[in-house]
Amino acid sequence: MSPGALPSFSRLSPISSSIFTGNAFHPTPESIPPPNVNLTLPVPPGLPVNIHPLVDQILAQPSLLFDSHTFQNPLDFLLRGAQIYPDKLALVHPDVPQPVFYTYAVWAQRVQNFAYALLKSGIQPGDTIAVIAPNSPMIADAMQGVIGARAIITTINTRLTKSEVDYILQHSGAKLLFVDHEYAHLVKDAKIPVIISQDTGRPGDPYEEFLSAGRKFSRERGWQGLEMDADENKAVCLNYTSGTTGRPKGVLTTLRGTYLAAIANAFEAQMDKNSTYLWILPMFHAAGWTFPWSATFAFSTQITLRTVDYTLIWKHLLHSNVTHYCGAPTIQIGVVNHPHAERLNHPVRAIIAGAAPTAHLLSELEKTGITPVHVYGLTYTYGPFTRNYPQPSWAALPLDERAKLSARQGHAFATSYPLRVVYPLADAAPGTPAGTLVDVPKDGKTVGEIVARGNIVMHGYFRDADATSRAFEGGYFHSGDLAVWHPDGSIAIQDRSKDIIISGGENASTLAIEQELASHPDVLEVSVVGRPHPKWGERPMAFVILHAESAKRWAAKHADFARDLKRHAKDRLPGFATPEWIVVVEELPKTSTGKILKTTLRKRAASAKL
Amino acid sequence: MSPGALPSFSRLSPISSSIFTGNAFHPTPESIPPPNVNLTLPVPPGLPVNIHPLVDQILAQPSLLFDSHTFQNPLDFLLRGAQIYPDKLALVHPDVPQPVFYTYAVWAQRVQNFAYALLKSGIQPGDTIAVIAPNSPMIADAMQGVIGARAIITTINTRLTKSEVDYILQHSGAKLLFVDHEYAHLVKDAKIPVIISQDTGRPGDPYEEFLSAGRKFSRERGWQGLEMDADENKAVCLNYTSGTTGRPKGVLTTLRGTYLAAIANAFEAQMDKNSTYLWILPMFHAAGWTFPWSATFAFSTQITLRTVDYTLIWKHLLHSNVTHYCGAPTIQIGVVNHPHAERLNHPVRAIIAGAAPTAHLLSELEKTGITPVHVYGLTYTYGPFTRNYPQPSWAALPLDERAKLSARQGHAFATSYPLRVVYPLADAAPGTPAGTLVDVPKDGKTVGEIVARGNIVMHGYFRDADATSRAFEGGYFHSGDLAVWHPDGSIAIQDRSKDIIISGGENASTLAIEQELASHPDVLEVSVVGRPHPKWGERPMAFVILHAESAKRWAAKHADFARDLKRHAKDRLPGFATPEWIVVVEELPKTSTGKILKTTLRKRAASAKL
Repeated sequence: MSPGALPSFSRLSPISSSIFTGNAFHPTPESIPPPNVNLTLPVPPGLPVNIHPLVDQILAQPSLLFDSHTFQNPLDFLLRGAQIYPDKLALVHPDVPQPVFYTYAVWAQRVQNFAYALLKSGIQPGDTIAVIAPNSPMIADAMQGVIGARAIITTINTRLTKSEVDYILQHSGAKLLFVDHEYAHLVKDAKIPVIISQDTGRPGDPYEEFLSAGRKFSRERGWQGLEMDADENKAVCLNYTSGTTGRPKGVLTTLRGTYLAAIANAFEAQMDKNSTYLWILPMFHAAGWTFPWSATFAFSTQITLRTVDYTLIWKHLLHSNVTHYCGAPTIQIGVVNHPHAERLNHPVRAIIAGAAPTAHLLSELEKTGITPVHVYGLTYTYGPFTRNYPQPSWAALPLDERAKLSARQGHAFATSYPLRVVYPLADAAPGTPAGTLVDVPKDGKTVGEIVARGNIVMHGYFRDADATSRAFEGGYFHSGDLAVWHPDGSIAIQDRSKDIIISGGENASTLAIEQELASHPDVLEVSVVGRPHPKWGERPMAFVILHAESAKRWAAKHADFARDLKRHAKDRLPGFATPEWIVVVEELPKTSTGKILKTTLRKRAASAKL
Repeated sequence: MSPGALPSFSRLSPISSSIFTGNAFHPTPESIPPPNVNLTLPVPPGLPVNIHPLVDQILAQPSLLFDSHTFQNPLDFLLRGAQIYPDKLALVHPDVPQPVFYTYAVWAQRVQNFAYALLKSGIQPGDTIAVIAPNSPMIADAMQGVIGARAIITTINTRLTKSEVDYILQHSGAKLLFVDHEYAHLVKDAKIPVIISQDTGRPGDPYEEFLSAGRKFSRERGWQGLEMDADENKAVCLNYTSGTTGRPKGVLTTLRGTYLAAIANAFEAQMDKNSTYLWILPMFHAAGWTFPWSATFAFSTQITLRTVDYTLIWKHLLHSNVTHYCGAPTIQIGVVNHPHAERLNHPVRAIIAGAAPTAHLLSELEKTGITPVHVYGLTYTYGPFTRNYPQPSWAALPLDERAKLSARQGHAFATSYPLRVVYPLADAAPGTPAGTLVDVPKDGKTVGEIVARGNIVMHGYFRDADATSRAFEGGYFHSGDLAVWHPDGSIAIQDRSKDIIISGGENASTLAIEQELASHPDVLEVSVVGRPHPKWGERPMAFVILHAESAKRWAAKHADFARDLKRHAKDRLPGFATPEWIVVVEELPKTSTGKILKTTLRKRAASAKL
């Protein structure tokens, strides 16, 4: 790379170049790495050559105890990219007034500047920094750069209220705050230093000034001048769950877990150096499911989108050769139903999680030429940790039947212990020792709780040892998600326990009902909750968004549509699970990550006059 | 799977089925897993949920110290295969009088039988078992099964002499010995119990009797009845290096290292559930470069070949949809030059290591439709730990120039620390503190030693602490391989230090000379060594195998050919590196893994009358 020159995108990254060529962009001078840069992090002191804890040595030197298991850490993936593919596009932010295009070499330099700028600001190992930003270079830099400064990053959901943001800033003890200009109002009276990004990547932008300060500080030190953690179990992210009830809880994840989860995600998604990953999923959500590091591990190109804009998404799917993106089912529904949707000519994999996709949605994706990679996970499990593994025998099945099998959440990743589905601890038979976990039968019927353990389980709740030990009762992490366990060992989520409808003494799974309603040709998206019923205790109530065309056809005839959909449901569901009420709506209440807020719907259902 | 029935291969594993259908094969009754088998290994006691060493807990309970970092171990990959793809072909041994075809479910059961049979034989955790076998189901079973019994496996090279075998059996302290019938003569007076395999997979075979004994023992216990190691740094393989001088040395590798190396190899080779891996590389060599576990991690099918038979190799390349194989350059030369060779219509990746491939060979592979994945490693590094990462810019270069860049050994895998090339310790400037490693400049010229550290470095030499600390001097593993370091951070091996020719005071790399000689159209394979010379000290001498056609043409005209090749060399090499003597030979002396025995050639050169 010739420093300062506009990278020739057609040469650098042919498959993602077509819509980017012609953009005249120069990284800031401080973003250009010096010649002959050493792209390796230092080896922490005291480590054995093979990272093996030699018994005698450790007993003799207890300080080695926590120095003994370091991986190179997930930041090394970016440095390898800068070493091996320096001129390849690493990070592209194209859909803003001042687009930026960073090669691996340039991005790595910016990340080094970020790390040194943190140190210059007085950040100490173990300190927390906070970021409030949509998908954009600043948050991408921060996810990598904190590791260089041995700090912890907490990324705050941009949809939170000011009081929620205040709570997280206070609870996390953040020492420094990075804010995108669009969200500056959320932090205007913050008690800690604030760096604002104008998202320009140009000199004069306060965030660029911050980075440049790091560059000055680091000029003589480089990567080897940073100090690295010898303990792979050091925390790296502090992710607050967007709880639907109560205060958000802080979830700590580690270098080791992030490293293994990122590799597992890259493998399962089949990402490689020819891949282009489109950031639709907010990077602030559960550390972007570790894809910030999956992408660098695989030498892929990342494109950041500030908002979920389906027109832009289709522009990139069609013209930037995007090969991968993550998104909850509601995002996928938006993708396949957009007017610009057309069958894709190149392989695209959609990593789906966050809620159970309906069979109907999976088949719609396939028709668009998008291969669904259906995974399941939680903030507590570094994002995805199970996957639906398609079976060769499914190929012979009709699309609809295949999609039903594809809607299961499947089996644990290789980097997780095999998961289990157990009777909820509260249901333990009398005399069972406290905390004993008993598997439900693998009959595809009995509902139990998904529990997990191993390297994909969070370090623990931040500053809440009690909640951590409750979550880890019986030696497993309790997901709170209910599922059946099929004879083939795969799981299928039924519902959050609170989402189950008890209708006439029967347990009705709202997910199972939604699966069937979604197969009605007029239904775009549907959510089902329980509504109190004088005779049955509860009965299902469905909130339905219609396809644009269907909405016109059924306009002013919603009662007719409801009758039609009920008939459709009666053919497919037992009586107690057939929706008693059906309401057509324009939109559904959702979290920023696309999870439908069933608590809100339940309140609406309870108070609805019908 | 219906127990006992012949799996329907066309359904099970479509891409590797074509030449296997029609084979009537029933696994032994003991190979059929019981219904509803639990395919998970037990969680070792005392492990935290997230495998994190909680400081207080560890200080209070020192026993937790070594229990704190368990991965699930590499045996779990096979169990995942049995759980997720039970009916997929896992292990195929087709080219014997009694071929066998094992699905993942059946193979896992056989491996469980193996583990219990070891326990029944009195094998204790940490005991060593030995295997002398070509690629075949027994050795494949053993690589997985030892982990279930917490034993260590030493696989012995079938080409060793009886006295070498005796030495390894004695040095390793092996408690039990598994021998393929073809090699029974090597162990006829062994002092430990011997299990002989007739390689039939049929009842009556002593090896099958051994497995069946395990099945009886395990009937009530299953996978959960095995005890697992809580310490991921426990040894799993004891690989003896086939040293060209002195006694073989035992190299210990660990569960952790094997787990990470296997994943890295699967990722770099792009193996997945549609892959079929052909065992040409002997599995006994450096634990098959960890591919026994890469293949199960990726749910791939493995085909075992007892011998390097190019006719069989081409049968499988053309008709079994083989997608991957490993082999030293000499094997690859055999593949591309075989009369059955033709351009392949499906993607095949050849993982090349063991010696530096010539640019000429790499281009020949590409012409055959085989994508070379050029890696480099040693027994001490779990096999491959660096890779040549092709650059987009190479696409525009002529094949020959591209192949020269492809012949470099490249950069370290993601699971290794970045490698270094350092001045040999003996060359340290006066006053340098002992053991200080100093990088050579990245100038592509200065020759230094490749050193490495991290999870891909062996645990150490077995029972030889002195040799281990010598190998780890200065905090890095010393490979003994000499290389230059290019400005892009990639390395290119020059020679083993003892292979460098000192000719008239100049250092001549035999590899560089071989690269140029290999580009002569008549040369099939070539090896160069130094021969004493009264004036220059040493001068290069080349041993050349000709292509079959060329051999006919040059028959009885070897002196003419030598003149022709010298002319070719003079155009490309400095005078001191141009071979003084050229000898046409029928074959070259090689180790079983295809490494050319330059010691033998040097002796031959020194004593040659010319």
